Amino acid sequence: MSTMNLTLLTDFYELTMMQGYFKSQNNEKVVFDAFYRKNPCDGGYAIAAGLDQVIDYIKNLRFSKEDVEYLRGLKVFDEDFLEYLESFHFTGDIYAIPEGTIVFPREPLIKVVAPIMEAQLVETAILTILNHQSLIATKAARVVYAAKGDGIMEFGLRRAQGPDAGVYGARAAVIGGCVGTSNVLCGQLFDVPVKGTHAHSWIMSFPDEYTAFKTYADLYPNACCLLVDTYDTLKSGVPNAIRVFREMREAGIPLKNYGIRLDSGDLAYMSKQARKLLDAAGFEDAYISASSDLDEYLIDSLKTQGAKISSWGVGTNLITSKDCPAFGGVYKLAAVQDAETGEFIPKIKLSENTEKITNPGNKTIYRIYDRQTGKIRADLICLADETFDDKKDMIIFDPLETWKKTKIHANTYTLRELLVPVFKGGECVYTSPSVMEIRDICTKEKDTLWDETKRLVNPHEVYVDLSDKLYKIKSELLEKMGREALEY
Amino acid sequence: MSTMNLTLLTDFYELTMMQGYFKSQNNEKVVFDAFYRKNPCDGGYAIAAGLDQVIDYIKNLRFSKEDVEYLRGLKVFDEDFLEYLESFHFTGDIYAIPEGTIVFPREPLIKVVAPIMEAQLVETAILTILNHQSLIATKAARVVYAAKGDGIMEFGLRRAQGPDAGVYGARAAVIGGCVGTSNVLCGQLFDVPVKGTHAHSWIMSFPDEYTAFKTYADLYPNACCLLVDTYDTLKSGVPNAIRVFREMREAGIPLKNYGIRLDSGDLAYMSKQARKLLDAAGFEDAYISASSDLDEYLIDSLKTQGAKISSWGVGTNLITSKDCPAFGGVYKLAAVQDAETGEFIPKIKLSENTEKITNPGNKTIYRIYDRQTGKIRADLICLADETFDDKKDMIIFDPLETWKKTKIHANTYTLRELLVPVFKGGECVYTSPSVMEIRDICTKEKDTLWDETKRLVNPHEVYVDLSDKLYKIKSELLEKMGREALEY
Repeated sequence: MSTMNLTLLTDFYELTMMQGYFKSQNNEKVVFDAFYRKNPCDGGYAIAAGLDQVIDYIKNLRFSKEDVEYLRGLKVFDEDFLEYLESFHFTGDIYAIPEGTIVFPREPLIKVVAPIMEAQLVETAILTILNHQSLIATKAARVVYAAKGDGIMEFGLRRAQGPDAGVYGARAAVIGGCVGTSNVLCGQLFDVPVKGTHAHSWIMSFPDEYTAFKTYADLYPNACCLLVDTYDTLKSGVPNAIRVFREMREAGIPLKNYGIRLDSGDLAYMSKQARKLLDAAGFEDAYISASSDLDEYLIDSLKTQGAKISSWGVGTNLITSKDCPAFGGVYKLAAVQDAETGEFIPKIKLSENTEKITNPGNKTIYRIYDRQTGKIRADLICLADETFDDKKDMIIFDPLETWKKTKIHANTYTLRELLVPVFKGGECVYTSPSVMEIRDICTKEKDTLWDETKRLVNPHEVYVDLSDKLYKIKSELLEKMGREALEY
Repeated sequence: MSTMNLTLLTDFYELTMMQGYFKSQNNEKVVFDAFYRKNPCDGGYAIAAGLDQVIDYIKNLRFSKEDVEYLRGLKVFDEDFLEYLESFHFTGDIYAIPEGTIVFPREPLIKVVAPIMEAQLVETAILTILNHQSLIATKAARVVYAAKGDGIMEFGLRRAQGPDAGVYGARAAVIGGCVGTSNVLCGQLFDVPVKGTHAHSWIMSFPDEYTAFKTYADLYPNACCLLVDTYDTLKSGVPNAIRVFREMREAGIPLKNYGIRLDSGDLAYMSKQARKLLDAAGFEDAYISASSDLDEYLIDSLKTQGAKISSWGVGTNLITSKDCPAFGGVYKLAAVQDAETGEFIPKIKLSENTEKITNPGNKTIYRIYDRQTGKIRADLICLADETFDDKKDMIIFDPLETWKKTKIHANTYTLRELLVPVFKGGECVYTSPSVMEIRDICTKEKDTLWDETKRLVNPHEVYVDLSDKLYKIKSELLEKMGREALEY
């Protein structure tokens, strides 16, 4: 993806609107926010991911001759507009929450400040990339949480929704906490650990299971994980694995990083029985890994049942986020610059659903941490030019249920602005960390959440409040709209 | 994707197994089947899609210097194997069911006959591509079925699981029956219709809704679809749209292909009220289109409620197949060639779940059509060298419940072999039709199903039977395995 020109990866209406702005000579600077409304899987948080690919996309944004030729052929665009496209490039500013950061609903994960023709064009691709990777990173964090310290391998490429979904999904899964992936292309592109041993077909291609195991162990004595469920797990697979391990021990081959993989059957029962067989043969340090339609709920249940599994391969349910396969991020106009004063005029989109009403204005977000514990107290969405002093008390209130107020006492909290500059005047001013660095950042980020927010079901919700000033602007806009509506 | 080398788009274990086969000098010719076990969304069928991208993938299969260098750095592969990879290319045969064809569980959609090192490597990418596109094509066919002849537009790019999921998902959606997509890159790559008008941000960027509509109508008088729900659908949006349509009429602009789009609220109620307002103003031919979290069930319900909608934009639920986001296709070893005799020795994979036991042998599939109606009577999976005569009676029986037998009388049926040659000795011998041609094929394919199989809930299941010969081979292998199991 990174080397491809994805300029036409956009909805057609972005282009018809662009031509509309072009023709009506309306190219004011505007503010668009990309945000989401609901945490995936009814969870308590999400993890921002995909920014590095958004940066690549913006850097490569240009209409090639072939692109313009294609658009000309649609007979919808005039020559003056097509000529404009030929020299098009992005000149705006972009702010974003860095990858791996914990985020909450209604917070702008990316803010685009640019002439409306540019800001409009980039809507679709930004959402596609951000929605996908944030979804999978969040799902991975949930699966990793359920495994309570065991390693989770991402195994889902074959069930991913196409090649990119496999490659960038695996990238996001590592950001969310997976220890590695089976996806070799992802390993090559992003320098993340790749792992894997063999499939049932390996076993079936040999005259018998023992020979298949033995051949494998001879080849890979230092990473010998034997898949034991091709014929009969406890009667054939595990005994044959033990025979091979024993032969390795007798031959003086140091046994380290070795074990078995269960890929079907009742994993709780099978793992306990396999553990007994391995222990009785003196292979207490052989690990038991498992795969087979796992997700965070099943892993949680298996842990509770005392399954003897210490390593997990998760495929379909992670790479597609099967129970919640869309993140639902949106991209909404928040302000239009007054050409004369340079001031940003806040804009609001109404909806019969109160939660869908947008937050107007050119905004930023502050995260309020407890000084003692380092945990998140709340987030505050405010106007970009507001400042706060952590040496003063801060009163925050819920933007929907405004009587719910909390005083955060002076000197008990610290503030961090979440949005950082990524593009300035069309130039990229941000360097993405490596994926493994983002993974480390994400691990630290997860430590800023209470367990009550991380739990899988019915989590505690972290408050995301509006500043006084922003709340007033929003209320006034709603009032004004309400008055106008009476006149319809 | 088509221009990218996706050779490393594979699971790491394919490569460790390849090296294993290389080292143990085991490179016999084998047969692998790619098939699926369960129709998406509990439906009665699926639609094969993705073959054209599988062909591109196989054609471009080669390990670049960078690929080999990357693999060398992993310190798992020996120099002789890496050297072999440098000159690797695919030399085998591939058979496939053409895109757009109706398919059923357990039928090989793709059959690979190749030396095991090659056949093993291509597993993951074939599954990724086939699983994704067949899933979305099937989902699209369901949505199109629910709309009873109305046009369905694919609108989901921003919610797709990454760029490929958007582009190839839209391709598959068109194959499944969508009339077009909002995805411009898909339009460019596959020459399919792209459409779209404007977003809420267009309305919000103007001082008022009327001006926004008026500007749009002046620009696009021949494709004037106005989005009416930014402020208040019935009090503001529809009246402003009518005002603009009236001005167009008064100015002598021919009104054709014009209408409104509803994107929120109660679509049944809103569409009926909007219809009344449009009709009362003399715009009986203005269409009403709708979007907003639609899927086949909601469209079916809205049709039943008499909603006045004739055109539908479907996003998230189609592009992710939200209620069933994975196709679940697998790739299983079915036979290994005896090096001496050249004969294919059938292989079987056992499972505690009877439905997961594979069909052994080098197989093909015949579709049995009723001569009179052209509808599908049943499918027959058999060995590749079996022949049948439609001038004789045919007795078919369910492979699980073998007492269920049906006699198909001579001269009442026709036979069609579903698998066609795609690669022979590594050379591509197949030319894919264009996407719009595949869409036409698919439309005809859907006509070979009874409505009872197409219905959304609890559909009639089409029989997929095994030939006598294949059934006997399978039974014998199971018997043999069972006997061996007693000896554990």
